[in-house]
Amino acid sequence: MKSGEINELTGFALELAEKAAAEILPHFRANIPIDIKAAEVWDPVTEGDRAGERAMRQLIERRYPSHGIIGEEYGKREGSSGLTWILDPVDGTRAFVIGLPTWATLIALYADGKPLLGVMCQPFVGDIFYGNPDGAWHRQRGEERRLHVAPERSLADSMGGTTSPHLYRDNHAAVFERLRGSMKSMRYGLDSYSFCLMASGHLDIAMDPVLQIYDIAALIPIMQGAGGIVSTWTSNDPSQGGNVIAASSNRLMDEALDIMRG
Amino acid sequence: MKSGEINELTGFALELAEKAAAEILPHFRANIPIDIKAAEVWDPVTEGDRAGERAMRQLIERRYPSHGIIGEEYGKREGSSGLTWILDPVDGTRAFVIGLPTWATLIALYADGKPLLGVMCQPFVGDIFYGNPDGAWHRQRGEERRLHVAPERSLADSMGGTTSPHLYRDNHAAVFERLRGSMKSMRYGLDSYSFCLMASGHLDIAMDPVLQIYDIAALIPIMQGAGGIVSTWTSNDPSQGGNVIAASSNRLMDEALDIMRG
Repeated sequence: MKSGEINELTGFALELAEKAAAEILPHFRANIPIDIKAAEVWDPVTEGDRAGERAMRQLIERRYPSHGIIGEEYGKREGSSGLTWILDPVDGTRAFVIGLPTWATLIALYADGKPLLGVMCQPFVGDIFYGNPDGAWHRQRGEERRLHVAPERSLADSMGGTTSPHLYRDNHAAVFERLRGSMKSMRYGLDSYSFCLMASGHLDIAMDPVLQIYDIAALIPIMQGAGGIVSTWTSNDPSQGGNVIAASSNRLMDEALDIMRG
Repeated sequence: MKSGEINELTGFALELAEKAAAEILPHFRANIPIDIKAAEVWDPVTEGDRAGERAMRQLIERRYPSHGIIGEEYGKREGSSGLTWILDPVDGTRAFVIGLPTWATLIALYADGKPLLGVMCQPFVGDIFYGNPDGAWHRQRGEERRLHVAPERSLADSMGGTTSPHLYRDNHAAVFERLRGSMKSMRYGLDSYSFCLMASGHLDIAMDPVLQIYDIAALIPIMQGAGGIVSTWTSNDPSQGGNVIAASSNRLMDEALDIMRG
């Protein structure tokens, strides 16, 4: 694909993020009705999630009717162009529910099944991370800078991030603890920020288990555009999801996978 | 103290937060120099921390020369008025280092050793939580709303937040796990946000172990102003720090402390 076309599609992806934000933000930290009973269902995240995805799907169907769509809320729509948008309007719904702005809107475009470009947008904070074959960037309130991963570190000196140790179940828990014990630190509670902060050189390793395609699709071009390495724990292609790990260098990734294999 | 005086001091505390933010923000997510070696020290958080505290101390010494100051970076300055400012320019330095905006500037005013008012400011997000004897409020980008805790829930239905399970060491770990196992969910990675999100009705329980006075001082008036209960694990006064737990109701606090006692 030509650079001009990639730029146009990247600009469109950023436009999608803006439209989604306008639909989702009114539901975030919405005032809990004073008279709500403890037992009643109060579910602003689902409303925000659905409204955000509807807005993005409408825009895609109007502008690029031949493109496919895979959405976390409204499922799959086949396309005829070989290009497919992968949408997660609110990734990190648990954070959303408790009013913590680590949730994000994730938007990816796949060409023939492979990640071409991706956007991570946290509109309450005003953070936008995005990447494509030309590189990766961070935008916040009008300022933009190019992303690059941190200088190479050994596993013992590396800092990592993941969402929660309790997501690593059964034999995953031991694998995770073995890796964590070999690192300098592991931060919890990050949702998709861990992958973006790896891309921006603040973390050396980012990981989360049992991801769906729409949890990771958008983050791959951001990390790769910044010089990062993305893999599954078994060294497979991470672009369909699974147990995903990302590192700032090939050597660090090898060291981490070695420890995880035990 | 009269309401007018409390309002004036609250306004001054918000002014301190603004001054600190101007000093600290340039150091947050500062571009890592491309040519830095892995072994070199890169410590923007300490620079931000110190610059923020210096700015606040200068302003206090000029406006209220009789007030005391306890600062996380520059220590204690005795006053003669019975009023003491307690300052933590960057609470959550680990989050600051990895570029995650859950760190905050914490500012409290104590009158005769007891919390009178407090401000939590996360300037990158634009979140300000503050409280005094008249109540508690949240400000973001010009909008302000009054805070109130969530409707009463049982421990089994409650959601909690803490910074990391690994901060609970030795016999604390078992106490924490017993409580966590009795709750609906426990979120990690929150720093001082857990206490503010309890005050705003998004969480039912917030806790962190081995806190210093400047880690908790500012948060007490915010939580109490919103109707929350703050205690140590042994039902003592939390205003000097320690193992702190906060809950949205007396009944929930009693239920939590019962479980923690085993």
